[in-house]
Amino acid sequence: MGILRLGHVDITVPDLDLATAYYTEVMGMSETARTADRVFFKCWDEQDHHSLAVRYDPRVGIDRISFKVTDDEDLATLEQRVERYGYRVSRIHRGEEIGQGESIRFETPSGHKMELVREVERLGSDVPTVDPAPRPPGGIGRAIAPPRMDHVLVTAEEVPEATRFYMDVLGFRLTEQLLDGEGRQIGTWMERSHSPHDLAVVSGPNGGLHHFAYWLDDWTEVRDAADILAYNAIQIDVGPTRHGITRGATIYFFDPMGTRNEVFTGGYRPDPDFPTITWTEENAGKAIFYYEGELNERFMKVHT
Amino acid sequence: MGILRLGHVDITVPDLDLATAYYTEVMGMSETARTADRVFFKCWDEQDHHSLAVRYDPRVGIDRISFKVTDDEDLATLEQRVERYGYRVSRIHRGEEIGQGESIRFETPSGHKMELVREVERLGSDVPTVDPAPRPPGGIGRAIAPPRMDHVLVTAEEVPEATRFYMDVLGFRLTEQLLDGEGRQIGTWMERSHSPHDLAVVSGPNGGLHHFAYWLDDWTEVRDAADILAYNAIQIDVGPTRHGITRGATIYFFDPMGTRNEVFTGGYRPDPDFPTITWTEENAGKAIFYYEGELNERFMKVHT
Amino acid sequence: MGILRLGHVDITVPDLDLATAYYTEVMGMSETARTADRVFFKCWDEQDHHSLAVRYDPRVGIDRISFKVTDDEDLATLEQRVERYGYRVSRIHRGEEIGQGESIRFETPSGHKMELVREVERLGSDVPTVDPAPRPPGGIGRAIAPPRMDHVLVTAEEVPEATRFYMDVLGFRLTEQLLDGEGRQIGTWMERSHSPHDLAVVSGPNGGLHHFAYWLDDWTEVRDAADILAYNAIQIDVGPTRHGITRGATIYFFDPMGTRNEVFTGGYRPDPDFPTITWTEENAGKAIFYYEGELNERFMKVHT
Amino acid sequence: MGILRLGHVDITVPDLDLATAYYTEVMGMSETARTADRVFFKCWDEQDHHSLAVRYDPRVGIDRISFKVTDDEDLATLEQRVERYGYRVSRIHRGEEIGQGESIRFETPSGHKMELVREVERLGSDVPTVDPAPRPPGGIGRAIAPPRMDHVLVTAEEVPEATRFYMDVLGFRLTEQLLDGEGRQIGTWMERSHSPHDLAVVSGPNGGLHHFAYWLDDWTEVRDAADILAYNAIQIDVGPTRHGITRGATIYFFDPMGTRNEVFTGGYRPDPDFPTITWTEENAGKAIFYYEGELNERFMKVHT
Repeated sequence: MGILRLGHVDITVPDLDLATAYYTEVMGMSETARTADRVFFKCWDEQDHHSLAVRYDPRVGIDRISFKVTDDEDLATLEQRVERYGYRVSRIHRGEEIGQGESIRFETPSGHKMELVREVERLGSDVPTVDPAPRPPGGIGRAIAPPRMDHVLVTAEEVPEATRFYMDVLGFRLTEQLLDGEGRQIGTWMERSHSPHDLAVVSGPNGGLHHFAYWLDDWTEVRDAADILAYNAIQIDVGPTRHGITRGATIYFFDPMGTRNEVFTGGYRPDPDFPTITWTEENAGKAIFYYEGELNERFMKVHT
Repeated sequence: MGILRLGHVDITVPDLDLATAYYTEVMGMSETARTADRVFFKCWDEQDHHSLAVRYDPRVGIDRISFKVTDDEDLATLEQRVERYGYRVSRIHRGEEIGQGESIRFETPSGHKMELVREVERLGSDVPTVDPAPRPPGGIGRAIAPPRMDHVLVTAEEVPEATRFYMDVLGFRLTEQLLDGEGRQIGTWMERSHSPHDLAVVSGPNGGLHHFAYWLDDWTEVRDAADILAYNAIQIDVGPTRHGITRGATIYFFDPMGTRNEVFTGGYRPDPDFPTITWTEENAGKAIFYYEGELNERFMKVHT
Repeated sequence: MGILRLGHVDITVPDLDLATAYYTEVMGMSETARTADRVFFKCWDEQDHHSLAVRYDPRVGIDRISFKVTDDEDLATLEQRVERYGYRVSRIHRGEEIGQGESIRFETPSGHKMELVREVERLGSDVPTVDPAPRPPGGIGRAIAPPRMDHVLVTAEEVPEATRFYMDVLGFRLTEQLLDGEGRQIGTWMERSHSPHDLAVVSGPNGGLHHFAYWLDDWTEVRDAADILAYNAIQIDVGPTRHGITRGATIYFFDPMGTRNEVFTGGYRPDPDFPTITWTEENAGKAIFYYEGELNERFMKVHT
Repeated sequence: MGILRLGHVDITVPDLDLATAYYTEVMGMSETARTADRVFFKCWDEQDHHSLAVRYDPRVGIDRISFKVTDDEDLATLEQRVERYGYRVSRIHRGEEIGQGESIRFETPSGHKMELVREVERLGSDVPTVDPAPRPPGGIGRAIAPPRMDHVLVTAEEVPEATRFYMDVLGFRLTEQLLDGEGRQIGTWMERSHSPHDLAVVSGPNGGLHHFAYWLDDWTEVRDAADILAYNAIQIDVGPTRHGITRGATIYFFDPMGTRNEVFTGGYRPDPDFPTITWTEENAGKAIFYYEGELNERFMKVHT
């Protein structure tokens, strides 16, 4: 099976308490572990130990993006492929990292530190596995409380090269692409989990994180998220609006330290026989923001 | 009872065919009458002859705003009040104007041509009055198709004076107001129909129309409207978003000739004992656009 | 203006603690006052002291239905009209009843104890009147939390006679009626607040309460209400479904003591010139439950 | 990869014209091919030639359930596994069957004729693959128009045995199961497409079809579907309601010939590491219909 889905995103924040307050009280994640300089969080319907880790650092940035892999055999196969491609791989074993066991780490052509994790501590969802309610009882209250993390979008100087690596080496499938006037990829959307995207790459500096995104269940939850963000004076970047690419509904916003978050819903359910959708440069505005039909400066320039 | 609701808005357009195409095929109104230089439209759940009239003129503008009045006695009372206030009133009788009978016309302190109409031709809703379906059968298709017109927002140099006229003379009730630093009204929202507003006034030149608005039934219909607008390459001004004032959800957009339209839903249901809500200038951004928290230049400057 | 809206419903319950637990923790109303044998509740967006009062009694039943009236003049006028119709009216003055002042009480031809209340203690909504958020901050949580009470449906042996009283004496306007094969009213829906109904009457014993209803803002909130009801093991009577009459979306359910509640949304916004909609007996099923097209026994038989 | 998703369902109908009218005008599928005794249909967002085929037969019934397989190698592997399990497999080649090429057919332990299809004619979605709109332009109108087929539920005398076959031989993964008092499976829900279920089996006669289901995008579309069904006098079996199992929202209804259809939305997105959810018999009512908490006779007894 190879890679299953986005596992967790590790970012750096200059204020652990502020980050914890925001990711629990506004986003509605649960804190699942804490050390002197790190805090771990999960969404209510996630089984795994965490889908977000924040580490103290004076600079806002990204440490690592981690994808979940099915089994040891797949991990070993992917390890070989990455090494054969020419990148050095390091192994993490059980006990070396909080909440997870056997994993590999490497850098990618887009300059991102990536991790494939085979074994994670399973904490279970907030609903039981016997006779469960469809939602967690009593308590989400007025936080956004998405059921799970959805995808990540990174920047790369060479989008085609980065995309080739993610497809040929890591097995991602291309759902959509944005081409410039010469037919060269300036944005690519790739999936492993039969959703419109688990990983996307757009033109920009190597190693950059544009945003990570949470799943919401429908357009009304997107509005509810906007209400909560506005009530908490969180800066909304763009939205509520719809993407042309993925068809999804979205809000972009910044956590109080400056990392861009997204809430996302909708879109199709692509199987591996899904035909890639292509967007032309003259429709780039609609491709990204279908209602506005244009990109704002901040959305294009700001990343961490 | 006095004034019941917004009756119809009469605007000028430089292209009757384009206006007709847009208001029927994109907005989904029905054309109910046509002369050499005018076309009349109604929404599917409206009983009256028309809620929008367009007249050919090389310049985009507004002819008149018309409110519906209960009966002859109320019309006469309101006529006297307007005259006593010092404005000249003219009478329109049955046969003089398409789709309507006994009416009065006058200019207001905000420089708007206003009409109170007592008698209108009743065409009936698109659903019957015996054993009706909850929506019109087979045919709204991919137009927005709001059930009815909702409100109008005009500009005035002297908002407090204009508001006083609308309240004291015409009987509007103040649901919300936006005050500047000196406590002076720079925007007022008034109702007669037990909805958040039938008429609103904001600072600007006398005689200006900021927008007229259609009602939609929920936030999902607002998204559907945005899909249709974007598909038809209609310029969206702002939204989908939420107002602080009225709590309503909204999209502002321009018809192809340049008149601003709105689709609107939500909000409370104020009875006459509703306590006026006040917004302070430092929260003006949130008051107008609750998610963005700020006003864009175009929204502030463009009117017809 | 006369009657503005449904003011409050007073019911009897055999267990005050259970009633309080249900109406606060499941329905999400606030408790606003309490005596030895009574508890008072309001919804979050209501200004008035209470919209529901429960009184201890070994038998589940209804004490009184109260409508809010604009001013003293209107109260006096309505008092005269009721007396002239032949019903004895008693006056309640400030200090005699919790949360309200000047009021009149009388029995109606349908055998209901009715009250018109002019003066009520105003507690205000859970959102402020200056720079308010569109919803109450932090805390509705997993209760249904409707913004306000909406309407009441009662039973009467003689629907036409009861309807005539409510229309001619109290000024209600008929929005919809269900006629039997002989064209006789077996159900009537009437409004004062420019909503599809504030008061409805269906065939049944005199003095019976079929249900009272809370307003919800959209169909997604109706689903959320169903989730909460099911999670709390509250017996759902019918729904989520849609009414043909009023077009509204609905769930009927029973409070744990046996009084039928409803959550309701949607429908049109009738002004006084709204043409009455008529339903024929052969479409009675669709009229009441548009999706099912038939009435269940329990819905027809059970009232309090 | 093995099986990707439900490919198509082939049913028999006693009236081809009525079936065509219903599946195009009420369900909103497109007719993609027709012979003397068969008609083929697809949903607007499906790429493949058809997802439903109807064949004339005086009796309403099911011909075959077809799943889509990735490639020839997978088809050959699955063919061997089915044969090794003791079932005879027949091959269909290109040109032998409308709209599809290389395929295998066999009977299953639950008495169903099943097909795995590797090659299908690709007609493409109603939206293009270059710069597409998020929905098909102008024309869905007032049909339900689901984007795609979702899953199928069949009956089997021996649910555990049938489930074992589907899991061990065909590679389905168990997302949920309903156990009787002795811990024996009386219902199982299985997936291949990372959705809550592509195939489900409940106790009943071998070879029976309980229903096939279409995907809808949200709860508001479920209501819209109910409006359309009721308007067209289609018999609704149960719903709108929610399932405990899958968490999905649903309506069951019958096509005019008697085959049960479902519209379905929501639910989680299970990866292969999803922990199976178990429902106990005492909660069987809630498991199937979360709001009603009980099963109706018709739902339990009627299948085709």
